[in-house]
Amino acid sequence: MGVTRRTLRLGAFLLTPGYHVASWRHPTARADGGLDFAHYRELLHTAERGRFDMFFVADGVGIRTPYRDADELSRWGRFLQFDPLTLLSALAVHTTHIGLAATASTTYNEPFHIARKFASIDHLSAGRAAWNIVTSVTDAEARNFNRDSQPDHTARYQRAREFMEVVTGLWDSWDDDAFGYDKEAGRYFEPDGMHVLDHKGEHFSVRGPLNVARPPQGYPVLIQAGASADGQDFAARWAEVVFTAAQTLDEARTFYRGMKRQAAAYGRDPGQMKVMPGLFPVVGRTRAEAEDKYAVLQELVDPVVGLGLLTQLLGDVDISGCPLDGPLPELPPTQGSTSRQQLVYDKARREGLTIKELYRSLTGGRGHRIVIGTPEDVADLMEEWFTDEAADGFNVMPPVLPQGLDDFVDLVVPELQRRGLFRTEYESTTLRGNLGLDRPARGAAAELPLSTGPVQVQE
Amino acid sequence: MGVTRRTLRLGAFLLTPGYHVASWRHPTARADGGLDFAHYRELLHTAERGRFDMFFVADGVGIRTPYRDADELSRWGRFLQFDPLTLLSALAVHTTHIGLAATASTTYNEPFHIARKFASIDHLSAGRAAWNIVTSVTDAEARNFNRDSQPDHTARYQRAREFMEVVTGLWDSWDDDAFGYDKEAGRYFEPDGMHVLDHKGEHFSVRGPLNVARPPQGYPVLIQAGASADGQDFAARWAEVVFTAAQTLDEARTFYRGMKRQAAAYGRDPGQMKVMPGLFPVVGRTRAEAEDKYAVLQELVDPVVGLGLLTQLLGDVDISGCPLDGPLPELPPTQGSTSRQQLVYDKARREGLTIKELYRSLTGGRGHRIVIGTPEDVADLMEEWFTDEAADGFNVMPPVLPQGLDDFVDLVVPELQRRGLFRTEYESTTLRGNLGLDRPARGAAAELPLSTGPVQVQE
Ligand SMILES: Cc1cc2nc3c(=O)[nH]c(=O)nc-3n(C[C@H](O)[C@H](O)[C@H](O)COP(=O)(O)O)c2cc1C
Ligand SMILES: Cc1cc2nc3c(=O)[nH]c(=O)nc-3n(C[C@H](O)[C@H](O)[C@H](O)COP(=O)(O)O)c2cc1C
Repeated sequence: MGVTRRTLRLGAFLLTPGYHVASWRHPTARADGGLDFAHYRELLHTAERGRFDMFFVADGVGIRTPYRDADELSRWGRFLQFDPLTLLSALAVHTTHIGLAATASTTYNEPFHIARKFASIDHLSAGRAAWNIVTSVTDAEARNFNRDSQPDHTARYQRAREFMEVVTGLWDSWDDDAFGYDKEAGRYFEPDGMHVLDHKGEHFSVRGPLNVARPPQGYPVLIQAGASADGQDFAARWAEVVFTAAQTLDEARTFYRGMKRQAAAYGRDPGQMKVMPGLFPVVGRTRAEAEDKYAVLQELVDPVVGLGLLTQLLGDVDISGCPLDGPLPELPPTQGSTSRQQLVYDKARREGLTIKELYRSLTGGRGHRIVIGTPEDVADLMEEWFTDEAADGFNVMPPVLPQGLDDFVDLVVPELQRRGLFRTEYESTTLRGNLGLDRPARGAAAELPLSTGPVQVQE
Repeated sequence: MGVTRRTLRLGAFLLTPGYHVASWRHPTARADGGLDFAHYRELLHTAERGRFDMFFVADGVGIRTPYRDADELSRWGRFLQFDPLTLLSALAVHTTHIGLAATASTTYNEPFHIARKFASIDHLSAGRAAWNIVTSVTDAEARNFNRDSQPDHTARYQRAREFMEVVTGLWDSWDDDAFGYDKEAGRYFEPDGMHVLDHKGEHFSVRGPLNVARPPQGYPVLIQAGASADGQDFAARWAEVVFTAAQTLDEARTFYRGMKRQAAAYGRDPGQMKVMPGLFPVVGRTRAEAEDKYAVLQELVDPVVGLGLLTQLLGDVDISGCPLDGPLPELPPTQGSTSRQQLVYDKARREGLTIKELYRSLTGGRGHRIVIGTPEDVADLMEEWFTDEAADGFNVMPPVLPQGLDDFVDLVVPELQRRGLFRTEYESTTLRGNLGLDRPARGAAAELPLSTGPVQVQE
């Protein structure tokens, strides 16, 4: 350890029944866990015992798996899931310290609903809510919202920027101490403490005020994972936690430094932005045990799913005509995630993989860093990325649940604690408190420029 | 009791901190209860002890109180509230039998979100979710959703009809037994069990399928309270519980019979529609005690609020120029609730009230039937309305919380039970089971005509 008192931040990315694409077929998996509250409650208790900063729920407004027919979708499986806010509200009242992060799309929601729901859950959890801001990436979702295909990438991020103005403006509807509930005087709130937003912009006209008091955290913690130029610019302006996928230390370090620089360019304190790459850990008491665990999962991957996954990671580019034992062809541009397409393409070229080898290498981590080994191996990698300033923490993606989380909490967390890298007790009962993020004062969001980045928006 | 085995249905309409407009100023009120989960949890435990069929959360997407400035709004108070689905999700995992009914607007939501959220909470609560379908009534809400004023009444109900087609269609995305989670065969669901909606209509294009399994109740219980011709036609087609406001037995009986007739005209079994008027009970051990309780609340009504309330009930008709001690003038038509305007107007004329007398008479029940008296008085009224087929049950609106609910559960419920009018134990763990409503088979919603009523919609 150096002189710095930085400690790791950990998110539990608990895609049920596991992050591995074949997880639901694993003998120990709770294949029906996606709609089982007791299953999630148990996972959360484990994560809280492991002192995780937060529990994160990924989401799509529709089935994001690309499938040609019901048979193919059935092979993929694992798409049933509670609406994230429904799930987190219920979990909020069964936990005491862990942060609760839900994904919600700026492309298919109205800002008033989002502001109100996240404010509600921040009150309900006494300051533990976080919002993973996404612009969505599939046409399948667009088709559930009156469109044939999604708006293009630039348009999605333009809407997202204005969306943030409105949502933070609504959270600022009331002074923190506006509500005095003065029964004698008959004044529910201090009239000076009300602030009507009256936003009129290109995408939204929203008057306000919100019918919920200012959230305990000021604003719920803002998370984002955009990897494109537009996505990174958005994160630099808004994100307090940045999720990302990186394969190598170098890649992660470059991204980390780039993000911090861009945040600083907006006038932000880079320390107030935590960069958390994904980590897919397969943990065994020995390396052989870990390798065996991984092999069991890999054996369960249906070839139809493997190829489908690759298609999805490439942004819906159709490669079904290409021979599985040949190389990946040159790719046309995608309206989906350009950065993810590039990542996968680079990997195939760098490692000289056939299509089949490529999809087999991706079924586990799906672009995220895989580590297969002992608790010390996992901790070594985390420590290296952390001390080399490639990460402020990690988004831990257990291959199969609940086993993979149990392994991490029982084996890896104690090792991180022994090394002084991770807390043994929560520092705070709020997510901001645990992440080391300041509580924004009313009006804080309006103080920075809306954009300094590549895309010019109105105003 | 006659030969019929009908028993009462009871909803707990727990607008915090009480239904009376001045409730929040009452010495016993939890003025800050609107954002206090522990307060709601306590109320729900009381309601469950009282064997209520369900807990109902009214809602607006914005502050519905009409106010000129912050000072006036501050006198109204009591507008802070959790987003209903956030609250109900959290309450679902702290209760075991009581139904959980949330209001959501078809005018300011997208059907995919609503279908998914209510399906989620039905799974979370193991079959206790209900949706109070509203088309919203204020311009204040419209202004939070990119509009200057609300769409007109007819347009709102046309959208609502198509909204219902989509939502029920999404709930029918999967056969009840579609998900077998067959790990060995690698089939998450039975491919024949998937049904892609692919709705293309005037207001919505929604492909589906939903990423949540069919709700345990088939569809969550559908509630509606439209009172206009359009509203009643909608209820006749869709509502399984009909909320209403009626002052007199005659009025209630007329409405009840009309609703059942209209339901039958759609080909429905009228027994599968439960009509539940609102009831505002002020309960004392003696009549004098009850009168005193009411007087305490009435004394707390701010005159600014009284006049504002009347304006609201009249559908935003401005009567601020009229003398308080004079009669109500003739009224222009409203885009808000026409039926409620008529109700209030009729009352003023019938009882020869001045504007001031009128608003004082409305501050408590706001159009709903008020009963002030002993537990026997309250039970007498309920029994009369019930046996005379003016009501299948009541939506109980305690004046101030938690006291008013305690009074009802401790004093009135035992009296109803003694008379054999109300259950002593829950019959079921699902809301449908307790209400005596059948579980709809997949496709049931699509079997009836979309409209037989006064408004012709497309198709
Ligand atoms: C760890 C992680 C989690 C993500 N979770 C979601 C999610 O739940 N829903 C979603 O629509 N997108 C999710 N994304 C995708 C990102 O929001 C983003 O769209 C993607 O990284 C592509 O970047 P771009 O939007 O800048 O092109 C996630 C990305 C990462 C790295
Ligand atoms: C008991 C009861 C509860 C209601 N709750 C709500 C509510 O929570 N939100 C809302 O917007 N409207 C609510 N309404 C209003 C009705 O949905 C409806 O708009 C109103 O009765 C006027 O009827 P109409 O729409 O047919 O004109 C409620 C009405 C009643 C009688």
